[in-house]
Amino acid sequence: MKFQTIESRQNERVRAFCRLRDTAAERKKTGLFVLEGLRLCADCAESGIPVEAVFCTEAAKAKGGARLGTLLAGAKAVFTVSEPVAERLSDTVTPQGVFCIAKQPPAAGFAPKRGERWLALERIQNPQNLGAVSRTAEALGISGLLVAGGCDRFNPKALRASMGSLLRLPVLETENLAETLTALGGILPTFASVPDAAATPVRDVDFSGGAVLVVGNEGNGVSDAVLEAAAARVTIPMRGRAESLNAAAAAAILMWEMMQ
Amino acid sequence: MKFQTIESRQNERVRAFCRLRDTAAERKKTGLFVLEGLRLCADCAESGIPVEAVFCTEAAKAKGGARLGTLLAGAKAVFTVSEPVAERLSDTVTPQGVFCIAKQPPAAGFAPKRGERWLALERIQNPQNLGAVSRTAEALGISGLLVAGGCDRFNPKALRASMGSLLRLPVLETENLAETLTALGGILPTFASVPDAAATPVRDVDFSGGAVLVVGNEGNGVSDAVLEAAAARVTIPMRGRAESLNAAAAAAILMWEMMQ
Repeated sequence: MKFQTIESRQNERVRAFCRLRDTAAERKKTGLFVLEGLRLCADCAESGIPVEAVFCTEAAKAKGGARLGTLLAGAKAVFTVSEPVAERLSDTVTPQGVFCIAKQPPAAGFAPKRGERWLALERIQNPQNLGAVSRTAEALGISGLLVAGGCDRFNPKALRASMGSLLRLPVLETENLAETLTALGGILPTFASVPDAAATPVRDVDFSGGAVLVVGNEGNGVSDAVLEAAAARVTIPMRGRAESLNAAAAAAILMWEMMQ
Repeated sequence: MKFQTIESRQNERVRAFCRLRDTAAERKKTGLFVLEGLRLCADCAESGIPVEAVFCTEAAKAKGGARLGTLLAGAKAVFTVSEPVAERLSDTVTPQGVFCIAKQPPAAGFAPKRGERWLALERIQNPQNLGAVSRTAEALGISGLLVAGGCDRFNPKALRASMGSLLRLPVLETENLAETLTALGGILPTFASVPDAAATPVRDVDFSGGAVLVVGNEGNGVSDAVLEAAAARVTIPMRGRAESLNAAAAAAILMWEMMQ
């Protein structure tokens, strides 16, 4: 492979990278996304996702390694970038010196099936939460995630927090979760989680027939339309302050119970 | 109360605040800690923790409100700070304009009792994790946290992520968790959590006699000394990649099971 060198922070490739990093609209328009760090970039390439461009510093090249070699060999274009350019590309405190632009794998081809257990996330705003939920979902063996608004699945902060699991798990996106739930209702029991002591404690729910379970937005919870569309409501009984269970912790407990 | 005005970012009070914000050593030496945001500062004052100094911007004063009034009335000293000073004090992207220095409440006076359920954290490095675990612990009704090394309980990022629960929950600190566990073994069953399929699945453990359960460091897990000191080992059975369950998610599931 032949490296081209980028030394200007104003380089068009650098600007394109930053637009993809910073805005969901740009990711949607182009069908591309970005990753930072050798581990994430290599995971991405190794899982068969086409890598359009790799950017790496001299220091990262000097460090080398088999995974970097494979990543570079499979990329359409490779660039050596100066340290100031790497700092511009990075959105972490300590840039790792390896970055890539990759093609979004299509979400199609997954469809929830009878008996499966899906978690739906309604307008989750914090990318750390989306990433953490995805990581837990993968560890526990959840069938897939249904992402409805909020942070998109190619948000770089969410991808990093997910340790790449967002690229490995089946992840579907929907613009209208209430409609999607109604449609899925014929295949799987649908649940909305609520901080309401009158709802069924999650421990008492029989998930043996599968489930789609909705976790709501951090501030506002599950929307009224989705509450209406879901067949049942479940809750995590709390003894302390109800406001104190955050979306990622609630999702971890709910997924754990779904998988029992 | 009489406001003094601070307009210099080099002011000694401002520097003292930043030292307390940034270093655990300074917090330990002085017995003080800092908070940012009206909600956290007011929670702190309202829970009876002595507030040494409050810093607030003109904008925050103009916004006013009953909670700010109570916070200011109870403080030993109150300062009006310029916007540039507020930016210096803040470690968030959007400073809220209210800050305080408070006295660390003593950890003494709590001691684990028979039948209680405590979570121990061994060298948790990420303040977000300590905060998230504390928040979940409070919501689920855990008896208290035992913090052994790593991030201290007065780390401002941990306090913020905890929504103040670190100031409300019983939190004990220990320098030698193995010794503490051995000592507690006479009162409560002790458990170490491990990512090891040979350990007892947490769902099969009887926690009715109470528990102290250890969650280990993010990268290295529970130390050998603590593994030896604990009476039993428990695990969260995983179907996906074992590395994919982070400390806060694992702690949420473990605490949930402890409270059943």
